[in-house]
Amino acid sequence: MPTSKKRIHLAAFMNAGPMGTVGWRHPEADPGFLTAEYYTSVARTLEAAKFDLVFIPDSLAVPRSLGGSFAPAVTHGAGTPRLDPIPVISIISAVTSRLGVVSTSSTGYSAPYSVARSYATLDHLSGGRAGWNVVTSFQDAEAQNYGQPALPARPERYARAEEFLEAVTRLWDSWGDDSVIADRASGVFGDAETVHAIDFVGRHLSVQGPLGVPRSPQGYPVIVQAGASPEGRDFAARWSDVIFCSHDSLESAVEFYADVKRRAADHGRDPDQIKILPAIAPILAPSRAEAEEKHRVFERLVDPVAGLSRLAYHINFDLTAYDLDGPLPDIDVQGVQGHYREVVERARRTGMTIRQLGSWYGARTEGDMLGSAAEVADRLELWVEAGAADGFMVIATQVPTAFAEFAEQVVPELQRRGVFREEYEGTTLREHLGLRRPERGEWRNRARSGGAR
Amino acid sequence: MPTSKKRIHLAAFMNAGPMGTVGWRHPEADPGFLTAEYYTSVARTLEAAKFDLVFIPDSLAVPRSLGGSFAPAVTHGAGTPRLDPIPVISIISAVTSRLGVVSTSSTGYSAPYSVARSYATLDHLSGGRAGWNVVTSFQDAEAQNYGQPALPARPERYARAEEFLEAVTRLWDSWGDDSVIADRASGVFGDAETVHAIDFVGRHLSVQGPLGVPRSPQGYPVIVQAGASPEGRDFAARWSDVIFCSHDSLESAVEFYADVKRRAADHGRDPDQIKILPAIAPILAPSRAEAEEKHRVFERLVDPVAGLSRLAYHINFDLTAYDLDGPLPDIDVQGVQGHYREVVERARRTGMTIRQLGSWYGARTEGDMLGSAAEVADRLELWVEAGAADGFMVIATQVPTAFAEFAEQVVPELQRRGVFREEYEGTTLREHLGLRRPERGEWRNRARSGGAR
Repeated sequence: MPTSKKRIHLAAFMNAGPMGTVGWRHPEADPGFLTAEYYTSVARTLEAAKFDLVFIPDSLAVPRSLGGSFAPAVTHGAGTPRLDPIPVISIISAVTSRLGVVSTSSTGYSAPYSVARSYATLDHLSGGRAGWNVVTSFQDAEAQNYGQPALPARPERYARAEEFLEAVTRLWDSWGDDSVIADRASGVFGDAETVHAIDFVGRHLSVQGPLGVPRSPQGYPVIVQAGASPEGRDFAARWSDVIFCSHDSLESAVEFYADVKRRAADHGRDPDQIKILPAIAPILAPSRAEAEEKHRVFERLVDPVAGLSRLAYHINFDLTAYDLDGPLPDIDVQGVQGHYREVVERARRTGMTIRQLGSWYGARTEGDMLGSAAEVADRLELWVEAGAADGFMVIATQVPTAFAEFAEQVVPELQRRGVFREEYEGTTLREHLGLRRPERGEWRNRARSGGAR
Repeated sequence: MPTSKKRIHLAAFMNAGPMGTVGWRHPEADPGFLTAEYYTSVARTLEAAKFDLVFIPDSLAVPRSLGGSFAPAVTHGAGTPRLDPIPVISIISAVTSRLGVVSTSSTGYSAPYSVARSYATLDHLSGGRAGWNVVTSFQDAEAQNYGQPALPARPERYARAEEFLEAVTRLWDSWGDDSVIADRASGVFGDAETVHAIDFVGRHLSVQGPLGVPRSPQGYPVIVQAGASPEGRDFAARWSDVIFCSHDSLESAVEFYADVKRRAADHGRDPDQIKILPAIAPILAPSRAEAEEKHRVFERLVDPVAGLSRLAYHINFDLTAYDLDGPLPDIDVQGVQGHYREVVERARRTGMTIRQLGSWYGARTEGDMLGSAAEVADRLELWVEAGAADGFMVIATQVPTAFAEFAEQVVPELQRRGVFREEYEGTTLREHLGLRRPERGEWRNRARSGGAR
């Protein structure tokens, strides 16, 4: 490494299904998103490029964002299909040896014993490369697939999530690092003195334990979260190892970064032990003008209704009920996540019609990363130096070419500048990210209960 | 094939953890049961031997069968650790191309949307090789890991399972086989007219649908079940494609086989479309006497308490509360599964002490398959010809050598006799098993509601 500049972490954001609004329709998109080969071949590209991790989001329903119907989502391939991400990252782990594998599980519609066991299992099978992206979910359609009439309110969701995280981390700690003895001569398999039940009794959930899986290579699989609301920031500052976020401007990214690191310090954590990764969706071409032309090709593929469906999913407001060629109605954005609130405010400020907003939102990419590899690398360095990021969540506009181009063009540029690894130095995801391995009992430092429960 | 004899199906039973009571302690046992390589290398052996499928059971707790404590299970490595089987079969699917991959999910502690999605995902990613072993679970410790004070009674468990299966199969049918169009020119991804919500409202659970995953290669992943009680037999006869069972005698196996096939016919199903696979745990040696000696080596490794722990787990009765050198107390076996009832009755008939029963039960193998490959093959053929089996669930006393020996010795013997395939003829698990692909709507023929809901 020629410099002592801060190193950048790279994560790859890939749906377990088609990308975005028109990822499936892009001329370069691989149509095989229901096959194993689609995922394993991208994973091999990412590992060859020394990415820290691949990240798979999730949604537990075919979105019903327009008129309460799932039909537009099916017609446009927007938000559906979505495979179960756990088998997807499992097969990825089987064909790689270093790449971190992170998938999403909701605290709203699963049980702590199941989630603790899935990620502990993945951490063992992958040799310490697993991560769990914690979501509280946000669609009524998801609640309705799990026997509930509607999504619980946010405070309720976070109260359950808090208990859920405490229960999961305590289950991960229910065996000690040395509890498995497996002494064939004496016949003693485990040191039962060092295995504990958790006897967790909360307001939302109860779990007895112990977990049926010994403590895993990373102690805790890496915990990822994306909360942007005040509740979300507090939760993430206490529990997360990695925070994934979206920003429309460098200023809002800097504000978010400083706020979360401050909150972490307030909770007694080392702020450097939380890695903040804003989303970017680079569009690469020899020049900025050519990248913009490339983006226009993409934009022409977007049906405005598909864009509005995506927006409705994000802001929980259905604009197709209005004249598509009229102005934006008054939308209450108070309950909306910060990033998406910025989107609505920007659309109103620039005087877009609803149709224009649909086209723009359906085709918009994250982070304004259009241009040559050198220009994109400049911006990535700028964001890191400005205190907005520890790395980036790279979203592919389509799979696999957008990842392949980033790997071929931007990664070598970052390596030349001495800000990205040329080889993996460790074997676990925590080692890639510069995160220490939690000692048994670490949950006490993160839980709001502080171990008093 | 030189003969027109009935073909035998072979499944391999492998824990996602150490085998049986002393599988981890056996001198030939691979200690790597927390690593991916342990599972993928066995899977390659099984696929090379043309097995129909690998089968992974499950348990959602460290068993507390003795004195309400999990300590004996940890000390002896009996029933713990148990990894999440879904990642395990996922990685197996990634390193094989024909072997069927079946894992276990409980209808008691998961949600139909999640289970439907996991197995539909695996069916897509594996190219039609997935199967789901349906269990209703039977330990209080499992209920207590999922916020419930105790295991619900069996009628309650089966009532929930009935709703669960109806909901899952309807979710699998929520997209038609041709619903994905993905026409890049028109921008139409899916034919929304052919995708349906299920709006399932039951007494135990409700699910709106549709599933976020299109109909999978097998239509329905293969449904496996092991119920032996009258409720279990009726349930299996309606829902199952494959039934896994245990018998202490050929007579009880013949009775069970005839009863289940009759029940299937009574429900309007083709009895040949249900494959019944009794468990066997062969111990191979050049002669019967040498196989018995091999078994005694195994038996000497068993701690009687580990055997009693396994038995307590199966019959829900803790014999360690009594004098180990005294006779069996009066045990109410009415609520106990048929196979395990036979075990208790046999122990009482032969006058075993509790300690002797512990040793014997901890070391007992299924199906009395001790001897040379020719002798074992003779018995397998006998069971099939007698109308007791369509094939067998091969349990390894230890992994990997017991599977490797079976693959090297018994499989070629069965192939020479013309009763086992020399090559896979199809690519899907249903094709291996001779099971037709269910049409959309097949759930109506299997559900007790008959589609009236």
